[in-house]
Amino acid sequence: MTSITPSDAFAIIAGRVHRTPLMTSESLNRLTGLNLAFKCEQLQKTGSFKFRGASFAISQLPDDCPGVATHSSGNHGAALAAAAAARGLSADVVMPENAVASKVEAVRAYGGRVHFCESNQVAREAGLQKLIDLGKTPIPPYDHEHIIAGQGTVALEFLAQSPGLDDLVAPIGGGGLLSGITLAAAQIAPHVRVTGAEPAGADDAARSLASGKRVSDHRPQTIADGLRALIGIRNLAVLSGHGIDVITVTEQQIVEAMVLVWRHLKQVVEPSGAVPLAAVLASRQRFTGRRVGIVLSGGNLEVGALLREIQ
Amino acid sequence: MTSITPSDAFAIIAGRVHRTPLMTSESLNRLTGLNLAFKCEQLQKTGSFKFRGASFAISQLPDDCPGVATHSSGNHGAALAAAAAARGLSADVVMPENAVASKVEAVRAYGGRVHFCESNQVAREAGLQKLIDLGKTPIPPYDHEHIIAGQGTVALEFLAQSPGLDDLVAPIGGGGLLSGITLAAAQIAPHVRVTGAEPAGADDAARSLASGKRVSDHRPQTIADGLRALIGIRNLAVLSGHGIDVITVTEQQIVEAMVLVWRHLKQVVEPSGAVPLAAVLASRQRFTGRRVGIVLSGGNLEVGALLREIQ
Repeated sequence: MTSITPSDAFAIIAGRVHRTPLMTSESLNRLTGLNLAFKCEQLQKTGSFKFRGASFAISQLPDDCPGVATHSSGNHGAALAAAAAARGLSADVVMPENAVASKVEAVRAYGGRVHFCESNQVAREAGLQKLIDLGKTPIPPYDHEHIIAGQGTVALEFLAQSPGLDDLVAPIGGGGLLSGITLAAAQIAPHVRVTGAEPAGADDAARSLASGKRVSDHRPQTIADGLRALIGIRNLAVLSGHGIDVITVTEQQIVEAMVLVWRHLKQVVEPSGAVPLAAVLASRQRFTGRRVGIVLSGGNLEVGALLREIQ
Repeated sequence: MTSITPSDAFAIIAGRVHRTPLMTSESLNRLTGLNLAFKCEQLQKTGSFKFRGASFAISQLPDDCPGVATHSSGNHGAALAAAAAARGLSADVVMPENAVASKVEAVRAYGGRVHFCESNQVAREAGLQKLIDLGKTPIPPYDHEHIIAGQGTVALEFLAQSPGLDDLVAPIGGGGLLSGITLAAAQIAPHVRVTGAEPAGADDAARSLASGKRVSDHRPQTIADGLRALIGIRNLAVLSGHGIDVITVTEQQIVEAMVLVWRHLKQVVEPSGAVPLAAVLASRQRFTGRRVGIVLSGGNLEVGALLREIQ
């Protein structure tokens, strides 16, 4: 289990990351019959929570670090490139060839070098290994104690902004965000229930938690491009150790939730960022009468691609 | 000329309207080479600045008012219905039959009664006259001194949040917002330059100001449904009296600006709300080296209809 806590990370990165706003919507509460608060990580630097973990991981590197490398469907890569650049370090990012084009552009805009690979876990890890062999320091996207601690800072802020929350709901891809939130809540607010939200088309976390064993057959099929990764080993251990439930949702539920966020909060969220609201609406009775905190995890949307998906 | 000022209105409505946030984007500034600040009226109650004017106008009615009526393409109607309901008054809203469906729904959701009419100024005014004949108090959408004063409060807040602004840029449809901003800036910050932004396909304000005479031939053709109205008489007098320039933009420039706001600010704005950014980008040299305040006027978007327009 990790020994570095989200509070440790927060002490380092609080001045480097945005304290993102909390939003509520009377009309959405009326429509859903629920009491919802949203943590707006789409307004975080680089457009997603990933900047938190990347900033903390980068802060922990020695001064003679020869540059960092990672694999990423996009948001971690952009966040790592931006955090590395802020410390004068280079960043090499292995990206699947079907990555969202605007996310590839974003990595480059923040100064990162992009290396394409086939869209599967083996190819991603092989691509990263090549960069490690060249001397780069790997900063994996989620299965890393600094990343987990950094992502957990979102829960520390959220609970400070809305002390009365009963629930925290966050998406799960590799599990960096959800395991960080789990550790943060356990540390400062153990009465808060943490729930994961996952596309049914990429339900490796739900299946791994149900079977007690990390699944190996994972062929994600989902619009939520940020949640296609296989759950990490450390991340699964944290979630399993704390008995975290994961709710799965359909593609249609994801799109409907995304449109609700656009309409009522006027916030652009990417499909992955709408998955927690979709999960709350799909399991309404679980959340009725409670104060529910939902993490909007990111807003990096390629408008054109999305329009094609929706229609 | 109006004798009730935006400051008068602000004293009444400050506790009833949201003090909407100001947003900036490093990436958008880098991309455009400009220094831009955005006032987020898409986060105002009912999703647009219109709630300001409606709230002030409603506050000025006598206690025995038999209910209010208006004509509106949508945002003023929803705002008036909400403000009226908050005072226990009924609201009747004449809407063009081609109004955006989600805006019709919004008027009803806030408790307003919708009366459809043909999509032209004569039909809208005839529809409203019928309601006046039934005893309702008309609250027109823009050509009204309370409405103008109320909309102007957005500039008071904007200049307080960002005291260093050199420019304020806002969209012009009927001119309530732009004339209110003009009066507010003249009162508290006369060094600030105010500029209007208008679709080329609904350029009645630009033509009226150029000719010195309110145009009568007005057949708006624009995606910016909130800016199809003909400029009001009081509004034209204010703009003309203060020598306000209006920049016109193409439909493509509007859509491009809207996508920039989505991508960099992660904010859902409706086409009308993106027109000022489009104007700033279309007249870049006018704004270079200055601190430019842009009013994002509303975010009430019918996603389905918009997708059809964009493609």
